[in-house]
Amino acid sequence: MTEYEIAKSGRISDALSAVADEENIDRERLRELVAAGRVIITGMARKHSRIVGIGEGLTTKVNANIGTSPDHTDMDIEIEKLKTAIDAGADAVMDLSTGGDIGAIRRLVLEKSTVPVGTVPIYESIVNVTRSGREVADCKVDEFFSVVEEQAREGVDFMTIHCGLVKRLAHEVAGRRTAGVVSRGGCFLLQWIMKNKMENPYYEHYDRLLDIAHEYDFALSLGDGLRPGAIADATDRPQMGELLVIGELVERAREKGVAVFVEGPGHVPINEIQANMMIQKKVCKGAPFYVLGPLVTDVAPGYDHITAAIGGAMAAWHGADFLCYVTPAEHLRLPSVEDVRDGVFATRIAAHAGDIGKGIKGAAEWDRRISRARAELDWEKAHDESIDPVRARKIYDKSPDDSEQLCTMCGEFCAIRGNMRSRE
Amino acid sequence: MTEYEIAKSGRISDALSAVADEENIDRERLRELVAAGRVIITGMARKHSRIVGIGEGLTTKVNANIGTSPDHTDMDIEIEKLKTAIDAGADAVMDLSTGGDIGAIRRLVLEKSTVPVGTVPIYESIVNVTRSGREVADCKVDEFFSVVEEQAREGVDFMTIHCGLVKRLAHEVAGRRTAGVVSRGGCFLLQWIMKNKMENPYYEHYDRLLDIAHEYDFALSLGDGLRPGAIADATDRPQMGELLVIGELVERAREKGVAVFVEGPGHVPINEIQANMMIQKKVCKGAPFYVLGPLVTDVAPGYDHITAAIGGAMAAWHGADFLCYVTPAEHLRLPSVEDVRDGVFATRIAAHAGDIGKGIKGAAEWDRRISRARAELDWEKAHDESIDPVRARKIYDKSPDDSEQLCTMCGEFCAIRGNMRSRE
Repeated sequence: MTEYEIAKSGRISDALSAVADEENIDRERLRELVAAGRVIITGMARKHSRIVGIGEGLTTKVNANIGTSPDHTDMDIEIEKLKTAIDAGADAVMDLSTGGDIGAIRRLVLEKSTVPVGTVPIYESIVNVTRSGREVADCKVDEFFSVVEEQAREGVDFMTIHCGLVKRLAHEVAGRRTAGVVSRGGCFLLQWIMKNKMENPYYEHYDRLLDIAHEYDFALSLGDGLRPGAIADATDRPQMGELLVIGELVERAREKGVAVFVEGPGHVPINEIQANMMIQKKVCKGAPFYVLGPLVTDVAPGYDHITAAIGGAMAAWHGADFLCYVTPAEHLRLPSVEDVRDGVFATRIAAHAGDIGKGIKGAAEWDRRISRARAELDWEKAHDESIDPVRARKIYDKSPDDSEQLCTMCGEFCAIRGNMRSRE
Repeated sequence: MTEYEIAKSGRISDALSAVADEENIDRERLRELVAAGRVIITGMARKHSRIVGIGEGLTTKVNANIGTSPDHTDMDIEIEKLKTAIDAGADAVMDLSTGGDIGAIRRLVLEKSTVPVGTVPIYESIVNVTRSGREVADCKVDEFFSVVEEQAREGVDFMTIHCGLVKRLAHEVAGRRTAGVVSRGGCFLLQWIMKNKMENPYYEHYDRLLDIAHEYDFALSLGDGLRPGAIADATDRPQMGELLVIGELVERAREKGVAVFVEGPGHVPINEIQANMMIQKKVCKGAPFYVLGPLVTDVAPGYDHITAAIGGAMAAWHGADFLCYVTPAEHLRLPSVEDVRDGVFATRIAAHAGDIGKGIKGAAEWDRRISRARAELDWEKAHDESIDPVRARKIYDKSPDDSEQLCTMCGEFCAIRGNMRSRE
């Protein structure tokens, strides 16, 4: 039985108990949410991984993407990124490697990661095909599925698969958008579908996929291959069309006892985020929503951790459950270790701001603790309560002549000290 | 006659024309907005300054705070910050100096700045008093107003004065909040009011202030001395009470022909921002709203340019007209030159995201241009269209073996190239 089926049967598993304790939520209440498909539990595949719950009523989780590209294949750097992401507080990582020995990198990530690990198996399928001198469209159906099974066997906790990008949508999107298809997996499928004039194999053989997911109990992340890559393309017919297909696939996964969550945009203007969150929750019957950003403008390469934090905070507030980080390197290069750190912290800020907004138990209490420390000019405690104490301490510049440890922003004219004086 | 009075008289001034041209808005429509007090025009005081419009229907503007503190008094560094802020695209700067030769720094800023310059004159009043060995509460009424007049004569374009922090609110706030009063100006007035048991001198003698503002035609920024400094304090009775007083003061300024805008929070949770914007616009009869952040969480010192960008984007979308930047140094130290740059860009991103949301003419077109360049793999054009081309070029890492100039994120597996291939 999968975790989802155990919850549906009315039983409370050890994994569910662990999540309930961490989230400070009643176990029976959590069991109901898991049984309803509104929360998924992941991280059971490897004993050294934290068990993580994602979905309604829980804190918003953060994913960090790592992995090689054809131009950067250094395994040590990717492992350093993994450690950096986890140290910075990422709740999950996805290994998106497409360069070097992909299998070896993934196995090392699975060995080293203390948080759930996700993948996008089409990458390995297509890399294998192109390395053997063939084209994307030459990938055989079995080559898509054998990779899924192999990765499941190795202990991958969740997989993003773009099952909803069906043939008619591929035709609808082709050449019609400002930025086309920007999902790498979506784009491989687009090429495969258009050249072969065949249906998306993951859709066509969805039951085969569900059988593997059921056998290994990994969570299926239904990828949004048609997510907008420009705000001009947001909430368009192809994006919405794919979401409607995904809604059907969510129900089919639940019927087979497979835990499922849904991937979402992308580039979305600020005034369309709330509607996007509402529609996904409605159409996908409350399935957890995993968003990539959303980025609220296209104009800020080099600062896309910020454009994504704006959209991510709003998305989380309006119901997104899982935020994929965006780093300052997005649109420009494979992220560096430093980019990974910046991306995780920016995304954690967005997640927390959203949690305050949606009233997650205990979220605003963290803010009260740091603010009380500030009001008492207790700098050590304020640094300790910071989301990144190392960075806070590094930037903090104590007023040189001040025994009361005022910062150099206001020095002796510190308003907090003025408050104290006004009460003297 | 002030610019405001000229507009009310039905005439279109050169300054108004300049703003209409820059904003691509009909002159008569703009004149109506200025005459209604919904837009202010600033920057007329010095011939070498850009004329800037702030308010309804215009692009959201960005202010950068510079200036010394008692612990950092290097004038050259502040001038470097001024240039950095303007180069990064700040629409205005405020000189908040409280250390060194404050008058000399301000005069240099006024001489060098090509954008409107604002100040908070109470700082100079109180610094003068404390340097003469007296206490904040010893500041005489004339010492508050002589500084205002001197700064106006020198060519300051707008001044933030905390006229709305009246005596009964000072009593109401004292000791009741998580973070007390965090506005420096507000805190000076709090001490002055509590010790002297007298009414706020800027409120008591508001007509005197309006007379000076009218004579020199500077815009009055009604400061929010009781802005929340912790999300736990947001939208509380003292903050709202001060806003109601400010609403009255807006009307009195308009009766006297003085252009006025209103300062706002502060630390505000994401779910309270829209209400804060709506209430200000309602209570202050459409006066332009100048917000400091808002910061959507207290827990992220070192990243407060990001927490403020989240809140600022939402605020701008919901009606804020002018965003004061927040730098990564906020709550920790006086900002460095690098902090200033990061703060301006983060805030410009927020302003632009808000402008897209509120449908400012031409805003989303910028996004279309960069996205079209991306879709064509025209990296030079994409960099040129970036909000910070220098940073985009610095981060961009071209795929080493690729004549088509793909970035290292995906290299040969670039989705954009896949789009092209799918059409082959």
